[in-house]
Amino acid sequence: MIIDIHGHYTTAPKALEEWRNKQIASIDNPSLAPKVSDLKISDDELRESIEKNQLMQMNDRGVDLTLFSPRASFMAHHIGNFNISATWSALCNELCFRVAELYPERFIGVAMLPQSPGVDPATCIPELEKCINEYGFVGINLNPDPSGGHWQEPPLYDRHWYPIYEKMVEYDIPAMVHVSTSCNPCFHTTGAHYLNGDTTAFMQFLESDLFKDFPELRFVIPHGGGAAPYHWGRFRGLAQTLNKPELEDHLLNNVYFDTCVYHQPGIDLLTDVIPVKNVLFASETFGAVKGIDPRTGHHFDDTKRYIEAADLTHEERTQIYETNARRIYPRLDAALKKQGR
Amino acid sequence: MIIDIHGHYTTAPKALEEWRNKQIASIDNPSLAPKVSDLKISDDELRESIEKNQLMQMNDRGVDLTLFSPRASFMAHHIGNFNISATWSALCNELCFRVAELYPERFIGVAMLPQSPGVDPATCIPELEKCINEYGFVGINLNPDPSGGHWQEPPLYDRHWYPIYEKMVEYDIPAMVHVSTSCNPCFHTTGAHYLNGDTTAFMQFLESDLFKDFPELRFVIPHGGGAAPYHWGRFRGLAQTLNKPELEDHLLNNVYFDTCVYHQPGIDLLTDVIPVKNVLFASETFGAVKGIDPRTGHHFDDTKRYIEAADLTHEERTQIYETNARRIYPRLDAALKKQGR
Repeated sequence: MIIDIHGHYTTAPKALEEWRNKQIASIDNPSLAPKVSDLKISDDELRESIEKNQLMQMNDRGVDLTLFSPRASFMAHHIGNFNISATWSALCNELCFRVAELYPERFIGVAMLPQSPGVDPATCIPELEKCINEYGFVGINLNPDPSGGHWQEPPLYDRHWYPIYEKMVEYDIPAMVHVSTSCNPCFHTTGAHYLNGDTTAFMQFLESDLFKDFPELRFVIPHGGGAAPYHWGRFRGLAQTLNKPELEDHLLNNVYFDTCVYHQPGIDLLTDVIPVKNVLFASETFGAVKGIDPRTGHHFDDTKRYIEAADLTHEERTQIYETNARRIYPRLDAALKKQGR
Repeated sequence: MIIDIHGHYTTAPKALEEWRNKQIASIDNPSLAPKVSDLKISDDELRESIEKNQLMQMNDRGVDLTLFSPRASFMAHHIGNFNISATWSALCNELCFRVAELYPERFIGVAMLPQSPGVDPATCIPELEKCINEYGFVGINLNPDPSGGHWQEPPLYDRHWYPIYEKMVEYDIPAMVHVSTSCNPCFHTTGAHYLNGDTTAFMQFLESDLFKDFPELRFVIPHGGGAAPYHWGRFRGLAQTLNKPELEDHLLNNVYFDTCVYHQPGIDLLTDVIPVKNVLFASETFGAVKGIDPRTGHHFDDTKRYIEAADLTHEERTQIYETNARRIYPRLDAALKKQGR
């Protein structure tokens, strides 16, 4: 089985974006705020948005199941206040739940959280609980920078984040560390802010002893870990300078990388440098890069091709495609077993 | 000949740091400001700080010449105002000039600029002119984020920076894009902020048409280009989405990468993905990582070992070690020729 652990609902019907635009417009004039019930999207509209896009791509590429969360760049936690984020998150998560209900063998949900700059992350717990308990979601996305490129929250090792971590341990769910849209013009959202978010989170884990406090906590760093695997020697050297153990012991029981690296040499480096047990298959379709590479004739984000061509055994590929995901996301494994898979 | 294009004076005598601490303490109490003449460092002290450190390392590794600039993390442009930065830059540049005078065949200067957050970069021109005209420096370091991790200046493609670019073209000198200390606790200085600065600058170039305005402008992105080469497919795909030409045409006549990547797989990827004409040898000794890799018995930052072991021809190695540097830094080439080299 091939499990893509990183897919977003980037193709949701236009009505969602229109509702959001009304919500944003209402921030300065709350009387204009749209009601949740104003958003009407039928099952047929959901099916159309999925079958012509993600599902077609998954079938083309032989991907069996996608872990599906709301569109990352639309989380935009920097907009409005906690209430704005809470309403928006609930809508977006519900749509992913409905998609998973429509295609129970092809999609399973991962939650966005109603984060808001300067607000205690504990406020996210009710939405998280609903998504896990009622929607059967198997993980969460955690934004280390809800300010959208201004980086005003404490680092991820700070106790500020512990309420989320305690809930993650209680529910035995991992978090993907994923920033959202940059509203800082220095950072292009998908070309700089996403990768910087990954590198920043990795180094925050490295410089801290977070996993002494939470030995069971698990994070997936998307986009192949940002710059981390390419600079593995630098990070090993920094760990040495900071009197931390080798990264295998210090981080690799808790930190995992996805395969959203869109060329063969990058995937070769990732699978060479990072132990196979820490690599999870993903493509982030449809995400930052949708085009076809004119030099290969294939989509840049068809990461399965790179995994197939990498110097890996059949057994290692199975780990990357399936067994690592089942281990890191135990609720995914339980859901699959319930389906007899 | 082997030229290391990225070395900082990280081993300057303690008197420099003590002077700086007094300067910082005087920001709130200008009557305590130290005079420039209070800093007294003899030639013997300079020799000692260099011969036991950079020069010993260069001799051990067979590096002939280092392009030498003030300590990057000490630039700290976020501290104080323009006058504070101007005085500090002048002192630091002068020390690098004196080192180059003491060892004219082993070191040649690269200038730090007296940048200050929110201040017009044109104010840096007098220091730049002095360093090029009087000190014989061959390039500059340009900090895209003088705020130190808050990223408040416009992106590098903005006209804000054009006064510097006009002078770079006039003098035919490249700039290394190099941030300084992070005062944002989210970003570890050498583990996150440096690499993020590199990735951010690369994407700023990619999303703009800066090099249409300045076809002769040249930038070196240090630390192997941050995340850029590892995510080369992503960046090619983003260029396609943004209707830019292939990166070879769009950026690689103006953007170069150094080899400060501290493990073999990273250097292998860099030299595989990036055309050899765009790769310049560097180690940044003594920089972020000073230790010995217990798995190899060699220093992490001994990048010459990785270049030697990479799949390159003798001719390609010569480009990386010498001829690219002479081409990108014409004033370096002129200085070497004057020495009969």
